[in-house]
Amino acid sequence: TPESAERTATPGVATGLAVTGAGGDVLFIEATSMEGEPGLTLTGQLGDVMKESAHIALSYLRSNGKRLGIDPNQLAAKRIHLHVPAGAVPKDGPSAGITMVTALASLATGRPVRPEFGMTGEVTLSGRVLPIGGVKQKLLAAHRAGLTEVIVPARNEPDLDDLPQEVRDALTIHVLGDVSDVLALALRPADERELLTAA
Amino acid sequence: TPESAERTATPGVATGLAVTGAGGDVLFIEATSMEGEPGLTLTGQLGDVMKESAHIALSYLRSNGKRLGIDPNQLAAKRIHLHVPAGAVPKDGPSAGITMVTALASLATGRPVRPEFGMTGEVTLSGRVLPIGGVKQKLLAAHRAGLTEVIVPARNEPDLDDLPQEVRDALTIHVLGDVSDVLALALRPADERELLTAA
Amino acid sequence: TPESAERTATPGVATGLAVTGAGGDVLFIEATSMEGEPGLTLTGQLGDVMKESAHIALSYLRSNGKRLGIDPNQLAAKRIHLHVPAGAVPKDGPSAGITMVTALASLATGRPVRPEFGMTGEVTLSGRVLPIGGVKQKLLAAHRAGLTEVIVPARNEPDLDDLPQEVRDALTIHVLGDVSDVLALALRPADERELLTAA
Amino acid sequence: TPESAERTATPGVATGLAVTGAGGDVLFIEATSMEGEPGLTLTGQLGDVMKESAHIALSYLRSNGKRLGIDPNQLAAKRIHLHVPAGAVPKDGPSAGITMVTALASLATGRPVRPEFGMTGEVTLSGRVLPIGGVKQKLLAAHRAGLTEVIVPARNEPDLDDLPQEVRDALTIHVLGDVSDVLALALRPADERELLTAA
Amino acid sequence: TPESAERTATPGVATGLAVTGAGGDVLFIEATSMEGEPGLTLTGQLGDVMKESAHIALSYLRSNGKRLGIDPNQLAAKRIHLHVPAGAVPKDGPSAGITMVTALASLATGRPVRPEFGMTGEVTLSGRVLPIGGVKQKLLAAHRAGLTEVIVPARNEPDLDDLPQEVRDALTIHVLGDVSDVLALALRPADERELLTAA
Amino acid sequence: TPESAERTATPGVATGLAVTGAGGDVLFIEATSMEGEPGLTLTGQLGDVMKESAHIALSYLRSNGKRLGIDPNQLAAKRIHLHVPAGAVPKDGPSAGITMVTALASLATGRPVRPEFGMTGEVTLSGRVLPIGGVKQKLLAAHRAGLTEVIVPARNEPDLDDLPQEVRDALTIHVLGDVSDVLALALRPADERELLTAA
Ligand SMILES: [Ca+2]
Ligand SMILES: [Ca+2]
Ligand SMILES: [Ca+2]
Ligand SMILES: [Ca+2]
Ligand SMILES: [Ca+2]
Ligand SMILES: [Ca+2]
Ligand SMILES: [Ca+2]
Ligand SMILES: [Ca+2]
Ligand SMILES: [Ca+2]
Ligand SMILES: [Ca+2]
Ligand SMILES: [Ca+2]
Ligand SMILES: [Ca+2]
Repeated sequence: TPESAERTATPGVATGLAVTGAGGDVLFIEATSMEGEPGLTLTGQLGDVMKESAHIALSYLRSNGKRLGIDPNQLAAKRIHLHVPAGAVPKDGPSAGITMVTALASLATGRPVRPEFGMTGEVTLSGRVLPIGGVKQKLLAAHRAGLTEVIVPARNEPDLDDLPQEVRDALTIHVLGDVSDVLALALRPADERELLTAA
Repeated sequence: TPESAERTATPGVATGLAVTGAGGDVLFIEATSMEGEPGLTLTGQLGDVMKESAHIALSYLRSNGKRLGIDPNQLAAKRIHLHVPAGAVPKDGPSAGITMVTALASLATGRPVRPEFGMTGEVTLSGRVLPIGGVKQKLLAAHRAGLTEVIVPARNEPDLDDLPQEVRDALTIHVLGDVSDVLALALRPADERELLTAA
Repeated sequence: TPESAERTATPGVATGLAVTGAGGDVLFIEATSMEGEPGLTLTGQLGDVMKESAHIALSYLRSNGKRLGIDPNQLAAKRIHLHVPAGAVPKDGPSAGITMVTALASLATGRPVRPEFGMTGEVTLSGRVLPIGGVKQKLLAAHRAGLTEVIVPARNEPDLDDLPQEVRDALTIHVLGDVSDVLALALRPADERELLTAA
Repeated sequence: TPESAERTATPGVATGLAVTGAGGDVLFIEATSMEGEPGLTLTGQLGDVMKESAHIALSYLRSNGKRLGIDPNQLAAKRIHLHVPAGAVPKDGPSAGITMVTALASLATGRPVRPEFGMTGEVTLSGRVLPIGGVKQKLLAAHRAGLTEVIVPARNEPDLDDLPQEVRDALTIHVLGDVSDVLALALRPADERELLTAA
Repeated sequence: TPESAERTATPGVATGLAVTGAGGDVLFIEATSMEGEPGLTLTGQLGDVMKESAHIALSYLRSNGKRLGIDPNQLAAKRIHLHVPAGAVPKDGPSAGITMVTALASLATGRPVRPEFGMTGEVTLSGRVLPIGGVKQKLLAAHRAGLTEVIVPARNEPDLDDLPQEVRDALTIHVLGDVSDVLALALRPADERELLTAA
Repeated sequence: TPESAERTATPGVATGLAVTGAGGDVLFIEATSMEGEPGLTLTGQLGDVMKESAHIALSYLRSNGKRLGIDPNQLAAKRIHLHVPAGAVPKDGPSAGITMVTALASLATGRPVRPEFGMTGEVTLSGRVLPIGGVKQKLLAAHRAGLTEVIVPARNEPDLDDLPQEVRDALTIHVLGDVSDVLALALRPADERELLTAA
């Protein structure tokens, strides 16, 4: 899709799926880092639960970085800022967890997120993907936005049969239980990145 | 049980027992550590009393580490993050105290928690296990979840005769008054860990 | 216009456009820096969303400084103070985002903002310019204040046909989607600055 | 009494006397210390006044340590955690002041508190013991709990004639005006400690 | 006037003009500095807007010190305390801005404020003097207090024709738009200070 | 008086005069210092205004220490704790200002406060003594408590003719406008201290 392609061109941006008052919607998680006092700056009028999700996402990556091929210093020794536009819209809930992990892992590795992917799922501190609500509305929104690959929690698999056949046919739906599998799927491989850099 | 086995495979995760609006339930305490500013990050929409329990658990281990065979630097010199999924569910009360001590001791020693154990009990700063409520509902939930060993506070022993005989038969119930006995029972021995690492 | 010319003569001041109870108005964003504890001081009775905009603006410049020709140390190693007069008037909303980026970039480069420019637009952490409200009132106010060049978000282009023809004729309206284009347009070039310094 | 003997076996725990909705009760103050950022962690759902009492107790000992034979570094260079079980019960008021001084002095010297002692009294920053309420209920509770020595503020002496003769006979009541006299009475002597250590 | 002469004898004190429930009044801004953790301590029951004014005043001087002949280290490397008596009276609003700049500049340079001066005006971060309310009441109060020179914002000039002729005759009224002109007028020259020091 | 003699025997304690619901009363300000993180700890359920008074008192002494013969490091390089018993009674207002300056100066110099003195008065940052309320009730309380010397603000002199002749005869009343005069009167001279130390 044009918008997610443009938004995810830079490492550090991942495409999430949300439920709003007016149905499902696509939402972007933007992460960046800078030299300075280590820590996490959060903006986008995030509620308590969503702020905690960001801390869980960051701690997961800092604790498991070595195993995931992420240099922990990229996240521990810098100031990290995570923003969720639009700036004036209050947002809350745990379902952006795996999208936050993906945005931060993209930032830390320099590997952009694949633009055709959207995702939703709570993450725990040990990397489990927990089920969330609004699967049908979120996947309809993903389809409307032109995304072709979506990631949902394994325990939400029963919700998928509520989708119109046309949407099921158009989307490749990945049901996952561990966030390390999300990263393996959604981040462009390191060598692909190198090709892009050379271009 | 499949879930607790999967969840507690990594050191730092312990299985607790809670009372919710809908009866008893099993809950996981996840702890992890990372390089960085020492201190304790708490997530999972924890109330004041439950946050205090986490501080008591950490202080107990830092003060008594030497006696318990725990390298205090594993807890004092790192950032500790303790999370209790699910992320959007508010939780409070002191009864996760011994589960928190167990999760943190598992993290600090690298010894996983035995997957067949569930536990409940308030802990004091000097390691006493104080009684809690909802014993019957909690043990029924432990049984439903396939746990076979449970730890309850010594002063809750009178509550055990309220359990159905079938559940009493299925569960091995440990009534303990000192949290160091909890650790001795619930953590896999160090040499067992080594075997696992070698596998 | 006399006032914006006077106010923007010093690097660090940019002219924004706002909607108030009494229609549109011109507003100045003032930024300055000083030796001392790094960080961001915000004054002007700014609401939560507007404070977050300032943090987004600063993080954008600190993360992308090298690419934009801005010495990151000008922003990271100093105390930054951003003020929005008048001091007693509460202000909120995300639409001063690109004006804040411009004021901070002007401060960091020493290049003054062109006095004939006014601007409005939300900014994201990766530099996208998002649409805002009140375009008609804001451009009428810009015209009244004697500004001749205005910057609005690309996605607000449809709102421009609501403007009186006379105002459309008097103003050069730039519709932009990336804040780096805002900086390229609105900051005086570095060599022009040198001429001024020599004068 | 069995419970206070068990609880005060470790240095850092002192037995206080409190008034609750249901009459008087015995309460334990637990203090411990650990390497780390110096300061005072307080848990046990303590109200504002009771938190201030803990700060007063700590400052008194840090300022007067030399005179009292306490190494000030035991309190100033470590993280101190003071907890008052039970963890979910809100507590407030200044009357635990002398018990807090005693628990902290026990911690700093390694001299356990005598198990037969219970105490109540506000303490000031210069070590004066100020009167408190509920003397009768508190001493009845001390008696019920099997304590045999109690300390009350000098200015509460007139309240003692309200006690049943049987309780007055069973208890040795010390009326004191200076908290250094409390410490002299309630802490086991240093050499007695050495004998215990050798045992 | 006797009181302002006495109060402004020491560097760091400037005379402001305020509106209270009972008409205008003279108010003193006291600033002092000390070795210690750099930063700004504010007392006098100041409201949010007035606290922000103090931060603006300090940042203006720290950023523009060199140009104004002020050693920035006098303000950046010390603890600054700014107090507005009377201590129990709540105060708010931006109109003490230029008085705060004057008090802090006096403190930093050691040049006392001229005792015959009173002043009122909001200040912006780049040193502009913005208009305030209550000009008539404030100048009447200045006259009653025996002051003979007053400073008001340029944009308040239209308010001056509301003053009784007698007061206009008695007062020398300076209408200023830039706070650097306030400092040039209201601080005793450096050589005058030296004469005083020698006396 | 016995109580004030006992309380002020140690440097750092000064006797103030307060108005309570039940008329005037004598109140003690206790200050102590200790090695550790510099700063001011305040206890005694102090309200906002009274907390600000303590900061003003401390800043006054730190800024003017040299002139007053006080080693500024006694106050700047240590942790200062100021407490006002009784611990559970809320207190507020600026009238303890000069008593706080006196207690802190006594602490810093080691010169005890004269036990026969009671005092009341707001203090400003430059050391002016401002008038307070309740003079009659406070002096009656001082007399009742056996004090023989009292200090009141110069601008409260008109209130003194409301006192009963007997009280005026019994008290030596000092009306002062500068807090340095308070210190000169109320602190025992340094050489008197030396005699005491030798005793
Ligand atoms: Ca919430
Ligand atoms: Ca279904
Ligand atoms: Ca609570
Ligand atoms: Ca039973
Ligand atoms: Ca808000
Ligand atoms: Ca249109
Ligand atoms: Ca309270
Ligand atoms: Ca009696
Ligand atoms: Ca306000
Ligand atoms: Ca007029
Ligand atoms: Ca208040
Ligand atoms: Ca009178």
